[in-house]
Amino acid sequence: MQVLVNGQAQTQIAVHDRGLAYGDGVFETIAVIGTHVQFWAPHWQRLESGLKRLGFHCDTQQLKQLIESDMRTLLAPSNGPGVLKITVTRGQGGRGYLPPEDVLPNRIVQLTSWPEGREHLSGTGVSLCLCKQRWSANQSLAGLKHLNRLDQVLARQEWHSEAYHEGIMLNQQGNVQSAVMSNVFIEVHGQLLTPINDTAGINGIMAAQVMQLASHLGISLQQQKIKLSQLESADGVFLTNSLNGIWPVVKFAQLDYAIGPITQRLLAALPAHIDAHSQPIS
Amino acid sequence: MQVLVNGQAQTQIAVHDRGLAYGDGVFETIAVIGTHVQFWAPHWQRLESGLKRLGFHCDTQQLKQLIESDMRTLLAPSNGPGVLKITVTRGQGGRGYLPPEDVLPNRIVQLTSWPEGREHLSGTGVSLCLCKQRWSANQSLAGLKHLNRLDQVLARQEWHSEAYHEGIMLNQQGNVQSAVMSNVFIEVHGQLLTPINDTAGINGIMAAQVMQLASHLGISLQQQKIKLSQLESADGVFLTNSLNGIWPVVKFAQLDYAIGPITQRLLAALPAHIDAHSQPIS
Repeated sequence: MQVLVNGQAQTQIAVHDRGLAYGDGVFETIAVIGTHVQFWAPHWQRLESGLKRLGFHCDTQQLKQLIESDMRTLLAPSNGPGVLKITVTRGQGGRGYLPPEDVLPNRIVQLTSWPEGREHLSGTGVSLCLCKQRWSANQSLAGLKHLNRLDQVLARQEWHSEAYHEGIMLNQQGNVQSAVMSNVFIEVHGQLLTPINDTAGINGIMAAQVMQLASHLGISLQQQKIKLSQLESADGVFLTNSLNGIWPVVKFAQLDYAIGPITQRLLAALPAHIDAHSQPIS
Repeated sequence: MQVLVNGQAQTQIAVHDRGLAYGDGVFETIAVIGTHVQFWAPHWQRLESGLKRLGFHCDTQQLKQLIESDMRTLLAPSNGPGVLKITVTRGQGGRGYLPPEDVLPNRIVQLTSWPEGREHLSGTGVSLCLCKQRWSANQSLAGLKHLNRLDQVLARQEWHSEAYHEGIMLNQQGNVQSAVMSNVFIEVHGQLLTPINDTAGINGIMAAQVMQLASHLGISLQQQKIKLSQLESADGVFLTNSLNGIWPVVKFAQLDYAIGPITQRLLAALPAHIDAHSQPIS
């Protein structure tokens, strides 16, 4: 693994960093192959939008250039597939919750190895459990990929069996919000439905790309509240995630699913879409 | 400032620490004078309870001994008042949200200077604004002093005027939950009311001590839902916090309050109660 903290090769950060103290920051997890970065533009847009929603005062254009410089340092053409994680915290200090006026964000850019052994799952499909842990509700944080992720940490601890690849998480209303590390889509009567992230959830980059792809393919799609019963009776279910792409769901608790026709169309079209949006950092 | 990370004098922590990545940890902020630590037993109990609720696998008795050893290293009889902050994170690593099975917690013990210039506020009283930012709702995290504190960071950014000392935060139902860094109590018809932390809030150590003190003094107290209108029409309002003790509220937005009779009794009794629970670490 290779890590740059504010452009310097180091693996530590100050204990007074507000990312540690309060989870005061955002992150992105991005698939890379060699120097090719998948969906960098939308990843950056989400990161920047997160900084704005959290009230970070910084020159985001300069930050983008610095992150891209870090990426050029870490990525090499001879590298295989890898995972780039970008974390931006508000920076150090402040007595209590109020950030210092002159605080400058800290950026951490890490390149880690590709998680092996998952590739077949887009063909075979995955099995899901239902997590007891629900999403915290708060529209001011909904959609953001911020560093307050205890909901997911608690949910992910609910299963240790390799029989399950992912877990469905409900929101406070008891509706389906997502899986622990993925967005969820269901097929109902030839239409694609995915939860709305109005009080919880993360606006997934791969989810947005799959929605765009569905639109190109003329597949009708709605973002709306999804009841657990709708998930259970769906004609097809799949998950999306920036590293895993599309994972068809073949099992949820005691229910078996076929891989739905829309899921199959999207699975077939996704690799070319990813290739078209996979570019070296300019 | 002095900092020990796992007992070693250092000021940095690994970027792979789960406290930074996910806010996967808890903290305590404790008033100290010289080697005397205020309310260490209840602070430790809350910390330990937080570790259990988050599913940390560690020998908490050993952890307590290590933290107490850190405290003996940092605290000196010749020191004046100070603030001890104890942070325990789940430790390093894990691919994604699942903690590694063999993960060991990291502890950070910091001693910082006492925040000067606040002492008079327990006499003069404080002014509050109403924050737009609400508490996230989730019973699994309610009451815990965990590291997912974006609600408070966002709320605290809402005012910069020194005319306000604190801000009231509502929960998702629109009821009064707390102030940004304090618990809140109101006097209504000779009774003390304080919000129940069932879906949000932090179980404050000073709040619990004040409840105990009220019980000793024969003051009736209820933990219940509190409407904004009840706060607005209260006969007295005060805040509690481990560093500030009791802060009577004299102003909330456009409303003025007298310092209520129960508040006055508790203010008078608190110093002796604090002294009785302020002991050197054994």
